Amino acid sequence: MNNEKLPTEQTITRESFPNSRKKYVKGELFDLHVGMREISLSNGEKAIVYDTSGPYTDPTISIDVKNGLPRLRESWIISRKDVEQLSEITSLYGRERLFQSDLAQLRFQQVKKPLRGQPGRNVTQMHYARKGMITPEMEYIALRENQKLQEMSNGMRVHYGESFGAHIPKQITPEFVRQEVAAGRAIIPSNINHPALEPMIIGRNFLVKINANIGNSAVTSSIEEEVEKAVWACRWGADTVMDLSTGKNIHETREWIIRNSPVPIGTVPIYQALEKVNGKVEDLTWEMYRDTLIEQAEQGVDYFTVHAGVLREYIPFTKKRITGIVSRGGSIMAKWCLHHHQENFLYTHFEEICEIMKAYDVSFSLGDGLRPGCIADANDESQFAELNTLGELTKIAWKHDVQVMIEGPGHIPAHMIKENVEKELRECSEAPFYTLGPLVTDIAPGYDHITSAIGATLIGWYGTALLCYVTPKEHLGLPNKKDVKDGVIAYKIAAHAADVAKGHPAAQYRDNLLSKARFEFRWHDQFNLSLDPETARSFHDETLPQHAMKDAHFCSMCGPHFCSMKLTQEIRELPDKEETIKLPVLD
Amino acid sequence: MNNEKLPTEQTITRESFPNSRKKYVKGELFDLHVGMREISLSNGEKAIVYDTSGPYTDPTISIDVKNGLPRLRESWIISRKDVEQLSEITSLYGRERLFQSDLAQLRFQQVKKPLRGQPGRNVTQMHYARKGMITPEMEYIALRENQKLQEMSNGMRVHYGESFGAHIPKQITPEFVRQEVAAGRAIIPSNINHPALEPMIIGRNFLVKINANIGNSAVTSSIEEEVEKAVWACRWGADTVMDLSTGKNIHETREWIIRNSPVPIGTVPIYQALEKVNGKVEDLTWEMYRDTLIEQAEQGVDYFTVHAGVLREYIPFTKKRITGIVSRGGSIMAKWCLHHHQENFLYTHFEEICEIMKAYDVSFSLGDGLRPGCIADANDESQFAELNTLGELTKIAWKHDVQVMIEGPGHIPAHMIKENVEKELRECSEAPFYTLGPLVTDIAPGYDHITSAIGATLIGWYGTALLCYVTPKEHLGLPNKKDVKDGVIAYKIAAHAADVAKGHPAAQYRDNLLSKARFEFRWHDQFNLSLDPETARSFHDETLPQHAMKDAHFCSMCGPHFCSMKLTQEIRELPDKEETIKLPVLD
Repeated sequence: MNNEKLPTEQTITRESFPNSRKKYVKGELFDLHVGMREISLSNGEKAIVYDTSGPYTDPTISIDVKNGLPRLRESWIISRKDVEQLSEITSLYGRERLFQSDLAQLRFQQVKKPLRGQPGRNVTQMHYARKGMITPEMEYIALRENQKLQEMSNGMRVHYGESFGAHIPKQITPEFVRQEVAAGRAIIPSNINHPALEPMIIGRNFLVKINANIGNSAVTSSIEEEVEKAVWACRWGADTVMDLSTGKNIHETREWIIRNSPVPIGTVPIYQALEKVNGKVEDLTWEMYRDTLIEQAEQGVDYFTVHAGVLREYIPFTKKRITGIVSRGGSIMAKWCLHHHQENFLYTHFEEICEIMKAYDVSFSLGDGLRPGCIADANDESQFAELNTLGELTKIAWKHDVQVMIEGPGHIPAHMIKENVEKELRECSEAPFYTLGPLVTDIAPGYDHITSAIGATLIGWYGTALLCYVTPKEHLGLPNKKDVKDGVIAYKIAAHAADVAKGHPAAQYRDNLLSKARFEFRWHDQFNLSLDPETARSFHDETLPQHAMKDAHFCSMCGPHFCSMKLTQEIRELPDKEETIKLPVLD
Repeated sequence: MNNEKLPTEQTITRESFPNSRKKYVKGELFDLHVGMREISLSNGEKAIVYDTSGPYTDPTISIDVKNGLPRLRESWIISRKDVEQLSEITSLYGRERLFQSDLAQLRFQQVKKPLRGQPGRNVTQMHYARKGMITPEMEYIALRENQKLQEMSNGMRVHYGESFGAHIPKQITPEFVRQEVAAGRAIIPSNINHPALEPMIIGRNFLVKINANIGNSAVTSSIEEEVEKAVWACRWGADTVMDLSTGKNIHETREWIIRNSPVPIGTVPIYQALEKVNGKVEDLTWEMYRDTLIEQAEQGVDYFTVHAGVLREYIPFTKKRITGIVSRGGSIMAKWCLHHHQENFLYTHFEEICEIMKAYDVSFSLGDGLRPGCIADANDESQFAELNTLGELTKIAWKHDVQVMIEGPGHIPAHMIKENVEKELRECSEAPFYTLGPLVTDIAPGYDHITSAIGATLIGWYGTALLCYVTPKEHLGLPNKKDVKDGVIAYKIAAHAADVAKGHPAAQYRDNLLSKARFEFRWHDQFNLSLDPETARSFHDETLPQHAMKDAHFCSMCGPHFCSMKLTQEIRELPDKEETIKLPVLD
């Protein structure tokens, strides 16, 4: 029996942010409208910030979670004339689920027939890019990434960072996006069966992005909670979401999430495959894994984590470790190899996987199944042997024009982080790096959003394109909504700090606006420009809730006599004749 | 009227940590006992960790907050035969307060007569060190810092970091401590009138330390709350505490805090001086500031922040900034200079200040009054001009054998942090650096413990000796107890991650023990070894509260089928014959 709770309009967060409205920027090459967030300041200025929250924060759009989000990209995809609509779902398992009557009440109702590339056609963004084609997705991204770069020149001091080989142009053009995708330095995860997604790009010459993991486990959660977690994660700034469900009704949960997600959705298909064989690793087969890939590709998953680099010969290396293999996918594949005395079937069937990927434009996220699980195990031979294989697989995927990013650790002491990025860029031919944290110490369970945001800032600065968040619950339990928000905010901080450090020309804009508001005691502006206006405001109001205090030239930290900002303003009003004073001699 | 709430045994946190007991290590040179925390693990192992919590976590010691903590150092100080006990308090203000009858009910009762160096005697640890004398304080520190370095060799892999010029020996001896103090590379803040403090050291060849700011403001808080905040901060790992009170009853609040604090207490005397003239900056005088220094030195303050580097000629530099001057002390002195058209009296009277410091062994924390208040203002001419002057003042203080550390920012983008440390070490002759954060972005008020822990990790790694914490309330209001804990934990993470990265030989010990416990599903050990056992445990128990789950080989994150650690253990049990497998050819 299924007692699944399903999402409704009431369980989804839809408020817009304070003093903010959705602003749509029109395309020039294509008929498209890029949603951004415009924050109105009390001094009449307006700030524009990158917005991952999708239609949920636009009160003029009516959303019915049972129908899913508007299908933004559908006409773009159709007009390329290289896809066909299938008369039915291809995967056996997908068809089975469709006809299971006890799932009727929890199934997403408005399932469209899936699209697939026409026989012999390759529908990946990389394929288009390499043919010299600029897609609407590329223009959308150029507009999105390029938001208000010009406002940087408003007279405030800006630092240009140390880029470690990243080259972010002052003007991000659709052609620049195309070149980066063609070169494999960036990917646009965008399955043709996920038309509602607002295109975004992952590459080190763009803004650093973050991923939020959600998904149920056998122990806890529901479809209702997971869909709201996805919407909630996007609200606070998640650029992509991974559905890592390993519990019940994985297929149906995913359908609900994809239909209602404005950001790319990633999965680890081996998780579902293992559920299909009731957790018995030895019963996994290539055929049922293949069916799972097709099932998920036809639902619209935008990227698959595939642990094809876990080779048999690497497994013994992990015996020297304190924590062995900590990737769920990695440990599954290792156990399978050892049981069957065969090579990893993800590796041996890699080209067949590429064929599936290019028929739907699913991107590879080549999994690091042998990543370290503690700082002692960092940068060891297991990890680097696998990374080398991922480089080999990258080249094969690129032969098929399939988009690739490379997953990375995990747990690394601060001084060993840079080596990871340098090795990844070299061995994987600059394919975008996608890392989990890394945590820079293991001694703070309960605070691993912080231990890992430290590592994430460093690795983002050095060149990682996508940072997978870690929540405070990491190592302890399944994150709830509060944990998701805490993880997302910690990672927005890391990504932004990395953008500033690596010299993204637009990054410091928001810092400067907020600092100016702070100095001028525009409290509301300070709150509204911050990553989390609600928390900033509520912290302030804890001690000074009175309305008048929003105009006060101090806060409860220092009180009225001791506010340095107030004193500085008084200093600035003093007569200006100090420049000529000579330094007295001090003996 | 005073409605102050005073501390009692009930308002002070005294529980010890789970499965932990206080272990005292005996001195060899002196009759002393260094308190450490011993954590008993379920596999019979014991872990020893550095312990800042003082007698509060030793249930065998009875503590009466009205009497203050046991006077650990009193006999050491007396036996040096270079101090005299004064017949009364020297400072005029201190005497005034003593005889104000309306303060009777809130005054700390057991005030001892203060000690002072005998005329012509210098009682600083630096003076002793330079004379070749090893003090009990130095041996105490050597034992404390050296805890269990040998346990590192228990077969687990350890990384040796990138030290940027720090040289931490494998064996920290009392003589090494002496040499570092003599060279000015480390300080031991230890006023002879704060005998209850457990000696600790601040220097880049030792463990990175953290400071927690507490103190009331004119808007909020009480003596009861502030004493508990101090005890609470030490409990979670604060190595020093600054009492930044700017509200009412500053003198009495400080007395209560010092008497009950096992860690060094720092202050910014100009705050109290300003309160004495009712917040009128122009009424500040050298004479009343001097009286304030003596008042606080005789109470037992261990280090003073003195903004002697804010010179008149530097003030105009700050006009180009977005946020001007953000140091409270800096803005006070700047306003005073401009009003009186005179040089900063802290600078012109610096040698007289040194005379006071050496009579009580108060250390300088040379304040960075012109530190940047936003990332745009980082590393500018105001900041670096002042740093240069601080270098000049360091040399003067050292002429008097007065201990010195140098304060640093504040707000710095990640890529500009290193320059700060390099400049400080060069210009201030390697005096220990003491920085506030720095925050690496300004866009996250409400989360500045995180934005700044990122910067703190980096600056600690590069060589900063003491990290001043930032709480989530920074920029928004006065921190409460929860904020203090959040700030302390974030900074313990930063300090520890920095120790690991710079290659402190003992740092990774705790990470490895915890990781091993994690891999072996010793849940209790994982909690108990963590920085915050309560939070780790409660997060785990949110989804799996049952007692039996503390032995389970999974948590709610992945559930039983997907636990990689469980799978790895199964893999390790499989027959061991994979080493010889040849890599198949993949085309």
